[in-house]
Formats: sequence, C-alpha cells, structure tokens
Amino acid sequence: MEEKNLGVIFEGFFSYRKGSLHVEDTGMQELAMAHDTPSYIYSRNYLLSQVSRIKSAFEQVDTMICYSVKANSNLELLKIMRKEELGADVVSGGELRGALIAGFPPGKIVFAGVGKKDEEIEFGVSRDIYCFNVENEEELSSLEKYGRKYGRKVICNLRLNLDIDLDTHHYVKTSRKETKFGIDTVKAEEIIGHSGRYKYASIEGFHLHLGSQIKEVEPYLKAMEKVEEFNRKIKFNPRIIDLGGGFGIPYSVRDKVIDISDFGKSISSIVKSMGIEKLILEPGRFIVGNTAVLLTRVLYVKRRGEKTFLIVDAAMNDLIRPALYGSHHTILPVAEPSAATPSIKADVVGPVCETGDYLGKDISVPADIKKGDLLVAANAGAYSFSMSSNYNSRPRPCEILVDGKDSEIIRKRETYEDLWKAKI
Amino acid sequence: MEEKNLGVIFEGFFSYRKGSLHVEDTGMQELAMAHDTPSYIYSRNYLLSQVSRIKSAFEQVDTMICYSVKANSNLELLKIMRKEELGADVVSGGELRGALIAGFPPGKIVFAGVGKKDEEIEFGVSRDIYCFNVENEEELSSLEKYGRKYGRKVICNLRLNLDIDLDTHHYVKTSRKETKFGIDTVKAEEIIGHSGRYKYASIEGFHLHLGSQIKEVEPYLKAMEKVEEFNRKIKFNPRIIDLGGGFGIPYSVRDKVIDISDFGKSISSIVKSMGIEKLILEPGRFIVGNTAVLLTRVLYVKRRGEKTFLIVDAAMNDLIRPALYGSHHTILPVAEPSAATPSIKADVVGPVCETGDYLGKDISVPADIKKGDLLVAANAGAYSFSMSSNYNSRPRPCEILVDGKDSEIIRKRETYEDLWKAKI
Repeated sequence: MEEKNLGVIFEGFFSYRKGSLHVEDTGMQELAMAHDTPSYIYSRNYLLSQVSRIKSAFEQVDTMICYSVKANSNLELLKIMRKEELGADVVSGGELRGALIAGFPPGKIVFAGVGKKDEEIEFGVSRDIYCFNVENEEELSSLEKYGRKYGRKVICNLRLNLDIDLDTHHYVKTSRKETKFGIDTVKAEEIIGHSGRYKYASIEGFHLHLGSQIKEVEPYLKAMEKVEEFNRKIKFNPRIIDLGGGFGIPYSVRDKVIDISDFGKSISSIVKSMGIEKLILEPGRFIVGNTAVLLTRVLYVKRRGEKTFLIVDAAMNDLIRPALYGSHHTILPVAEPSAATPSIKADVVGPVCETGDYLGKDISVPADIKKGDLLVAANAGAYSFSMSSNYNSRPRPCEILVDGKDSEIIRKRETYEDLWKAKI
Repeated sequence: MEEKNLGVIFEGFFSYRKGSLHVEDTGMQELAMAHDTPSYIYSRNYLLSQVSRIKSAFEQVDTMICYSVKANSNLELLKIMRKEELGADVVSGGELRGALIAGFPPGKIVFAGVGKKDEEIEFGVSRDIYCFNVENEEELSSLEKYGRKYGRKVICNLRLNLDIDLDTHHYVKTSRKETKFGIDTVKAEEIIGHSGRYKYASIEGFHLHLGSQIKEVEPYLKAMEKVEEFNRKIKFNPRIIDLGGGFGIPYSVRDKVIDISDFGKSISSIVKSMGIEKLILEPGRFIVGNTAVLLTRVLYVKRRGEKTFLIVDAAMNDLIRPALYGSHHTILPVAEPSAATPSIKADVVGPVCETGDYLGKDISVPADIKKGDLLVAANAGAYSFSMSSNYNSRPRPCEILVDGKDSEIIRKRETYEDLWKAKI
C-alpha cells in the first residue's frame, strides 16, 4: 500500500489518525455517515495552502494568478479563490457567469477558448473583463466590433501555437501544431503587422498554454525562448505574457514533480530579463487537484480465478479520468491497515455497465477488505466533479468542504427527481 | 463525402431534400432556428421501425425484448418503447425508477449490473420486477432475503462469464475473464449445486451479455454452444436465456453489419433446439443508435498550415464517444454540397479546452464551408446524451423528437442557472 509517503500527495492535510483516514481534523468515517457515499471531500486549508504556495513562488514579478475555473467550478470553491484575491481564467459563457456570481472583479478575469461565440465575446466585453486570449483573426474582428459598440479598449493576447512537444497524455498536449489551439508564428506576425487596423482590440501580449501535468520547468523556458526569438524577429514588445497553467502535481507517492517555487524562480527570472510587464498564470489542477478525494464504499468483493474486483459505489459517471485518460488515482482504505495485514492486488471498479468503468487497476488493498468498507480515490479535486455525468441514470455525488473539525455541503447530492425534471 | 449511401445509416429517415438535410419531413435548418444548437434530433418513425425490425426478427421464439435504458434514458423515448410493448433492461435504481415513471409494467423489467446496492435490490423485489441478472453469490443472498421479506419468488439468471473474445473496443468487451462482469462456470456450477438452500431466489437461467457492436452472429452462437455444453455437464435445464444486447449498427456508410433478421434466424433456431422457454434480449444501441443526430453550428473555420479545423458549438461534454472510445461518427453538412463543390479534409472540434474534444478527424467537408453553417454528427442516439456532462460549465443540449412534419422538445436545454442551483 502507498500510505507510507502520503505526504507527497496530501501535504499532511489528509492523514491516518488513530487508525482511520482523516481530512484535517475530520474523520472520513463520520463524513460517510453524515453524507453517504460516493462524495467528494475537499480540504479547505490544503486549498489555501496551495494558493499561498503559488502566490509566493511568483512574487518576484507582477503576476496575476487566474484560477482555471474548468478544473473545478464549484461556486463555494470559486468564492475562496476570489477571497484569496486570485483572478479567474474562464473558457465559456457559463464559466464567466460563474466567476461573476462568485464575485471575481471583472478586471481579474481572462477569457480563453477556441470557440468563443459572438454572444460570449459581447458579454465579456460588456462586463469589461481584463483580457481575451485570442485564437484567430475572426475573433479579433469580433472583439474590435464589440469594443467599438461598448466604447472600450479590449486587451487581446494572441494564443501562440509554438509546436512544442510534451511528455504528457496526448489529450492534454495542447501546443502541437496538430491541435486546434493557437495561431502559428507566421500568422501571428501577419496579424501583428496589420494590428493598426484595430482601434479597440489592442494586442498587448501572448498566451502560451503548453498543456497539462508538466513536471519540469524546461518546456516553459523553451516556450519563452521561442517567444523571445519571435519578438526580436518581428520587433514586437509584448507587455503581457500569459503562460497558462499546466504545473504538474503528483498523482502517486512515487511521482516526481519539481516544486512550484522552482517553477517560480526560473520563470520569473526569464520574464524579468525579457522586460515583460505582467505575467498571467492560469493554474487549476495545481491548486485544487490534490485537495480532494472521492469517498466511496465497497459494495461487493468479487473473486474470480486469480482476479479480485472491489465493486464500489463510485463509478465513471462520478470520476471519468481513469476511463478517459487512463489516469492513475491513489486509492486508500479509510481504515488504516495494520502492519500485519497482508495486502492483495485488486481492480477497483464501479457499478456502471462498462469495462472502462474503473477507478484503479492492480491496486494494493488489505486482504481482509470487505463489503461496507470505505475507500478514497485521491487526486480528485480537478477535472473530477467538473466532468461528472448522469450516465446509467446515476445522480451526481455531493461535494463537502472540510475546515478543521467543521464540514459544510458545498453542492448537494442530486436526487432521482433531478434526473427527470428537465424532461419537460 | 459520405452522403451517397446515407441509407446504410439512416434507412431513409434522414435525407437530403431540395439541397438540405431533413429528418423525416422536417428541415434541420428550421430545427436549428427553432431550438438553437447544439441539439439532439431524433426521428420517431426510425425508432418505431427499429423496434419493429427487432420484434419481427425474433418472433419465431417467445422473446421478451427489453430496451436497454442506459443507451438513452429520455423519458419520452422510454414511453414510446413501453407503448410498443417492449420491456426495460435497467442497471441502477435510477433507471428502474425511470422505467416505472415511463409506465413499463414491472413484469417486463429486468435488473442487471455488477454493483446493485441492497436498497436497489429491495426496491426491485418490492415492485415485483420480472427478474434479476445475478453477478455473484452475495447478491443471490440479498435477493433471497428480500424475496422472503416480501413473500415472493425472485427469478434469478446467473450472468455467466464465458471468457469469449470479441473484435470490438476493449471498453465494451464485457465477456472476458479480466472484466468485472459475470460468474465463471466453476463458480456457477457450485452455486447451482447448492441452489436448494434458496427458497425465494429461484435460478431459472443464464444471462450472457457479450459486449457491444457485435456485427456477426458467430459470437452469439459460440456463447450458446458453450452454455449448452455447460448445461449438459451440470445437468441443468435453464428455462430462460438472456442474451443481452450488443447487436451492431453501422456508424459509417462503409460499415458491414449483418441484418438483424439474420441474427434472429440463427439465434432463434439454436434457442429452439436447446429447449429454452424464454429468450430475453436487451437491445439499446440497435434501437436508438442511428435514430438521432447531434445538430451543431460552425463557429470558426481555422486554417493553420495544411490543417483545417472546423470549430463547432457541440463539444465533448455533449458527446464524449469520440474522446472516450475513439469512436467514429458520420459527419454531414446540412446544406447538401453540389456535385461541383470540391471537398477538403478537416478536423471537426468543439470549444472545450482539451485536445480530446473532437467530433471527428479528417472528415470530408465542402471546401466552401463557413462560420454559421450547420453540421450533424450522426449515430448520436445511444450513449450520447446519456453520457453528457456540464464540463467547461456548458449547459447540456435539448433533445427534439421529430414525427413527420412535427417536432416536440423531449428534454429542455439546460440553462446557466441550472448549473448552479444544486450548489445550495
């Protein structure tokens, strides 16, 4: 079992106390009793700690840290980010509305996305959000149009596609030329060359999101160097660089990820040397990724031949990452296994009728695990609840925020009635 | 472009008329005007035709055709199936409730699934549903317990895992011994051997769901032969065989799938020869799969180097199959391309910030396609809306049912407000 170095993932905010897994000072067992399973359980203080770590890492330069709403759009979590004075990175009209409802000042909201609709662009301009990350020239024309309509300058950062390859899942590589994202440098040069034709859309910098789960600083530095070269070539001095997000986090206790402070040092230094006025970052997973677990209960222990399956009450509709990306989640029993308990390998699977419905394969679990026992799937703060569905007519789980000994429901569990109320 | 043999997929229920794609007698253009995009558009008469085809194919034997609710659980569609006198195959408490709300008689409901909770089992027994497909011995004990509590016999079919390999996506292979499904024959023999200990749980047959998108009759025949052999060995005469679903449908005009009537002939003949009293089938995809399209609008045409991207307003949150299974959907423009229009290859992608967010890659589209044009992604009736999510804070699309010249909304488009109302 992996519990020996749990600090790698949990930084002490989730830990075994008196033989039972706790989140801060609250027992998982109590949470399961109070809120049933499956439930997403968040640690408020872990979240605050991550926010504080990334703020410190980049305090050497003028940095606007915009929380990436797509990672987890729970309104109560958004309110925490806003109170911590983060900005918001949004990618749709829905996320922009969510950020405004949570109270983010429009001047701290950046709007990205390859498919912004005209009405979404107009809504953003009318609310005077900080800037748009622009994906193509047509979008720039729309921004000019609405800038004129509302009589205001619209800050535009061109999203560059620098064709940088990353050692990450092909679905989260977003900076290759085969992907839909960004503008190549040839086109960017052309756009900047005739930027004089725009009176309201003001190109002030570049957006460079490289992808997800980047565990070293090199890709960022490589991207910055490419941009510097490009600036020299076209004689353009960007005021803003939006480096996007992508800072990797450990999904298992064996994962090696460089510390955010090292990202901060290296990136800040190159930003200074380039004379960039403002750095924008869009961390999502870094902030919320490891601050939550999906709490679930064993429904059946099924042994067939050499294989053992733990059938649990959480499924791919609750957490699709393993099925969609083949991603690893650290899975732990809530009752701490004694040193004497032998462990066995099991597939932890959900009740959904698909072979792809699993939380983990070949997971070490105590040999005496049984029906009714609780487990958690860790690393469940980002791209977890936000991608949940009602597949197999399963109501979505509740979300619980723990603060020391206190806990509050930050999203109610869906009811069966919720499944059908939209059906006229 | 693929429109030459559209009948392979659409059987005439979706077709070009006067240069524009219609569903039955209703224009897609009108539907987009009336209901906006993205929208799921269903053909009622295509659905009825599929129901009728599968009924005819199996009329030589006593067959209970139970629509597999997980494929698409829209209540209005369920009501159509119920009126057509189909039964329902459910895999969760939510689906069971949905089937009951839609009016299916409990005596025509079968309950499958590897992770039935006690309360779900009790609910099913208390409503006196037709039978349970049993995944392990613990479940059998629960069925016995609730059978006793409610004083009724509970028909149980053991789900056998026959370790049959299929030429299909590994996520929808459900009959390999590595998967969580079913009971191996050794264990099944043991369970049947001591079935005398159960007074209420009555083992009357086997459930044999093999997987999805099976395009030939051989796997079914192979499974039946294996069962026959097993019956001979343990001297057991099953009254019921539930063959599950899995009947393949064409996802492209080049797909070769044997006709359902051929499935019917071969399977009926072996069922008769085995002296099986009742055949249960659980078709889902076969009935609804090709009866719907996802209607979407082009937001941007993005050309970068040799690549063309059509960025459309439907995304992986609306239709996750391409991202999840790499599955192919036939994509067609609503405006019929003239013979003279050259075609180009393009990736059809959504606005969601993931490289995996695509509807199709290297799709032939008219070279003059432009912003505002409409497209449909076909084959969108099964495992499409039912797997949709709110990822990127995107409200889920509406569902529209067309009957000739008429159309009705069978599920309202979600609103932005819907996204946050569960957040206390």
